[in-house]
Amino acid sequence: MVRRDGPDDPDASGGPDDPGGTGGPADPARPGLTRRRLFRGGAAAGLGAGAFMGAAALGERLLTPSRPAEKEPLHGGRTVPYHGSRQAGVETPPQAHARFVAVDLKKDVDAEGVRRLLRLLSDDTAKLTQGDPALADSEPELAGVPARLTVTFGFGAGLVERVDPGAVPAWLAPLPEFSRDRLAPEWSGGDLLLQICADDPLTVAHAARMLGKDVRAFGAVRWAQEGFRRSYGSQPEGTTMRNLMGQVDGTNNPAPGSEDFERLVWIGDEGPEWLRGGTGLVLRRIAMDLDAWDRLDRPGREEAVGRRLSDGAPLTGTREHDEPDFTAATPLGFPKIAEFAHIRRARSDDPDERFFRRGYNYEAASGDGADSAGLIFAAYQADAVRQFVPIQRRLDDLDLLNEWVVAIGSAVFAVPPGHGEGGFIGEGLFAP
Amino acid sequence: MVRRDGPDDPDASGGPDDPGGTGGPADPARPGLTRRRLFRGGAAAGLGAGAFMGAAALGERLLTPSRPAEKEPLHGGRTVPYHGSRQAGVETPPQAHARFVAVDLKKDVDAEGVRRLLRLLSDDTAKLTQGDPALADSEPELAGVPARLTVTFGFGAGLVERVDPGAVPAWLAPLPEFSRDRLAPEWSGGDLLLQICADDPLTVAHAARMLGKDVRAFGAVRWAQEGFRRSYGSQPEGTTMRNLMGQVDGTNNPAPGSEDFERLVWIGDEGPEWLRGGTGLVLRRIAMDLDAWDRLDRPGREEAVGRRLSDGAPLTGTREHDEPDFTAATPLGFPKIAEFAHIRRARSDDPDERFFRRGYNYEAASGDGADSAGLIFAAYQADAVRQFVPIQRRLDDLDLLNEWVVAIGSAVFAVPPGHGEGGFIGEGLFAP
Repeated sequence: MVRRDGPDDPDASGGPDDPGGTGGPADPARPGLTRRRLFRGGAAAGLGAGAFMGAAALGERLLTPSRPAEKEPLHGGRTVPYHGSRQAGVETPPQAHARFVAVDLKKDVDAEGVRRLLRLLSDDTAKLTQGDPALADSEPELAGVPARLTVTFGFGAGLVERVDPGAVPAWLAPLPEFSRDRLAPEWSGGDLLLQICADDPLTVAHAARMLGKDVRAFGAVRWAQEGFRRSYGSQPEGTTMRNLMGQVDGTNNPAPGSEDFERLVWIGDEGPEWLRGGTGLVLRRIAMDLDAWDRLDRPGREEAVGRRLSDGAPLTGTREHDEPDFTAATPLGFPKIAEFAHIRRARSDDPDERFFRRGYNYEAASGDGADSAGLIFAAYQADAVRQFVPIQRRLDDLDLLNEWVVAIGSAVFAVPPGHGEGGFIGEGLFAP
Repeated sequence: MVRRDGPDDPDASGGPDDPGGTGGPADPARPGLTRRRLFRGGAAAGLGAGAFMGAAALGERLLTPSRPAEKEPLHGGRTVPYHGSRQAGVETPPQAHARFVAVDLKKDVDAEGVRRLLRLLSDDTAKLTQGDPALADSEPELAGVPARLTVTFGFGAGLVERVDPGAVPAWLAPLPEFSRDRLAPEWSGGDLLLQICADDPLTVAHAARMLGKDVRAFGAVRWAQEGFRRSYGSQPEGTTMRNLMGQVDGTNNPAPGSEDFERLVWIGDEGPEWLRGGTGLVLRRIAMDLDAWDRLDRPGREEAVGRRLSDGAPLTGTREHDEPDFTAATPLGFPKIAEFAHIRRARSDDPDERFFRRGYNYEAASGDGADSAGLIFAAYQADAVRQFVPIQRRLDDLDLLNEWVVAIGSAVFAVPPGHGEGGFIGEGLFAP
C-alpha cells in the first residue's frame, strides 16, 4: 500500500491490494494521479474504509481543474526494507530527521528479558518502517506515512553481557579518555540504542513513542538526542550536509556500496560471529561555540578547516570532491593547507584508519546555554579502537577546530546484522 | 535567484540574474534541468563564484546518464514574499516547521530602541525570506535554502506601551483566568514574538539564530517553542494536520481568502489605525497526557472529540468536511455527538465567535515529563476577547478532552500589518 524503494517496486503493476489493476499506468480519467498514488501520501495504510473515503475526498480536491496535476510524487509513502542481512539506517541515504535514544536496562532484565524486548522491538519496527501500525499502536493513523523510516539498533556492552559475557568485542567499551573531551554522563553510555530516522518529524515522533512503550517494562531512557539535516527534496539528492557552523560536513566519506565501505564499515569474518554483517557505532555529541566561531573572519574559518566555506572545496582545489594536496605550498613556502587544519589532522596515512560518518545537526530552540547547538557525530566502523580512536587522538593532539567544538557526550554501540522475517534483531547473540 | 510562488514568477523568463537567457524553457543540452533550476535548491543565492562552481559540479553529477532526470522540483528554493500589506505566516499554507520565540525587552529600551530593533529585524527578514543572507550573516551559506521561510512578528503590550501607551488595544493583555489552565510563567507572556516557519529545519535554525543576534542588544529570549507538522511533500497539499493524539486537528477552520476569514482574522476599520491589516495571535501551549489518552479505547476517543479518528469525519457524517449534525440522535434518543464532545463545545451559535487556527505539534525527544508532548495552539483573530475568550470559556466549563489536555502556556500578541520596501514592521505605531 506504500511505495517501496528498490528494484522490485510493487507499484510497477497491479498488486494484491490493487484489485482494480489501475496501479500501473495512470488512470486515464485522472491524469497523473492513480488511486494508488493517493494512498502513498495519505494516512491510509492499514486503516479501514473510513480512511479510504478520506483519501478519496482529498483526491477529488487535488484533481479540480483549477490547477495542473502535481508532478511531485509524495515522499511520505516511501519505505526502506527492514528485513535483510544488514540493518538499514547505515548505508541508507540520510533522512532529514533523526532521534537517537539510549536505554538503560533494568537490573533484573536477564538474557530472556533481552530476547523478549528485542523481539518486540523487531516486530514493531518491521511494521512501522513499512507504514503499518505497531502491534498495539495507540495512534495507528500516525503510522501511515513511513517517509523512509529506519530504526537501527545498537547494543552497549551492558546488554551484550547479560546475554553472553564472552561475546563483547574489545572495542565495545567507552572510548579512551581524550584530553579535550568534556563528557557529561547524561549524554554518554547506554545499554541499547535506537537510531530512528525518517524524512518526516511526525513519523519519527510516532515511531519513538511506540518503540518507547515497548521498552518501558525493560528499561528507562538514559538520553535522547534529536537531529536534523535539510528537509527531503529541498536540495539535489547527494548534496553534502552543512553543519551549524556553515561548513560542508562529510565530504571525505567512504561511499556506501564501495569496496572501501565494505571493508571499513561492515564486520566480516574477523569479527565475532554474531556481529558479522554488522558494524560499530561511535556517537559523539559535539557542542559548537557558535558565538566564538562567528567572531572569526572567513579566511580564518577556512584555514581552520582547510576547505572553502562556499562549496567545501579543499584550499588546494576548485571542487568539493577534489583530493586535497597536502604538499602544496604558498609562494612563501607555507603549506596551503595548514598543519593545524582540520582536514589534515583528520586524515591518517593508514588507509584503514577511516570510518563512515552520518551526522546530524542539533539545536536547542532557545539558543541558550553552552550546549545549545552542535553536531551529533555518528561514525560507523568495524572496529572503533582500530579505526576511530587513532583519528580522534590526532584531533585531540592538534586541530584548530578544537577552539570552537567540544565533545560533551560519547557512546559506543555494536550494531548487529539485520535479520529475516520471523527472526529478531541480535538473534545471533543467543545460543540456538 | 530563487523561485517565488505567485503569479509573477520571475522564473517564467530569463531575468537579470540569468544573463544567458536559459531560464525559460529547459536548456536543450540538459533536459529537465536549467541552470536556474540548479540554483533553486543549492546554497548558492547571494554567494560568489565559488558557490556557483559548487552548484555546477552538483549539476554535472545529477546529469550523469545513469539516472533519469529528476521530475521533482526542489522545494528548498521556494519563497513567500515578505513585503506586502499583510504579514506572511498567517494565510500562508503552514510550513512543516515552526519556532515561536518570545523576547522580553530590556528595561532601558525606549521607543527609539524599539524602532531600531524592528528595523533591524525587518531588514534581515526581508533578506532571509528571499534566500539571501542577513546583513551581518555569519553563516551566509545557510541562507540559500529559504524553503518558504516566513517570519511573523507579534507585539506584546509591553512593546506597544513603550512606543505609545494609548495604542494598546483592549484585547492585548493576558487572557482572563480559566479554571483548568495550569500556566507556567516560562511558557507565557513576552514583549515581542518571532514566529519563524519554513519547510526546512535548518532554515528555521539559521533564521532564528540571525534574528536572535539582532535581538540580543535589546532583550533576552523569554521562551522558545519548536513545532512540527508533516514534512513538505509527504502528503497531498491541503491535508489537515494530525496532532499527537492521532486526531485530525483543524478541520473546522475559516479558509484563507474567504469572506469569513477576512472578517474574522484581519483587523479592519474598527481596529486601532496602526493595526489595520493586522491580526491578533493567541498562543497556547497545550500539554497532552498521551499515556492516559492511550488507555481510552477508540469509541471513547471518538466520542470525546465527536469525530472519527480514521478520517476526521464528524460522527454524524462520512467525510472530514461534512457539517456536524448536532441534532442527530441515536435510536435510543441520545445525541450522536455527545453534549460533552469537543467539537460541540468548541462551537458557538454566534458566527463571530470563531478564529483561525494554525497549530503545530511539539514533543520532547526524551518523551519524559508531564510536558513531553502536545500542541502549540496558534489562533488568529481580530479581537481575542470577543472571539477567542467565549469559546475558551465554553471549553473550560465542559469539554471531555480536558481530561487529557491542559494549557501550560499562554500569550497574546498584536500582529501588525505588513509593510513595503523601505519601511519596517510596526511602523504605523510610531508617530510620523
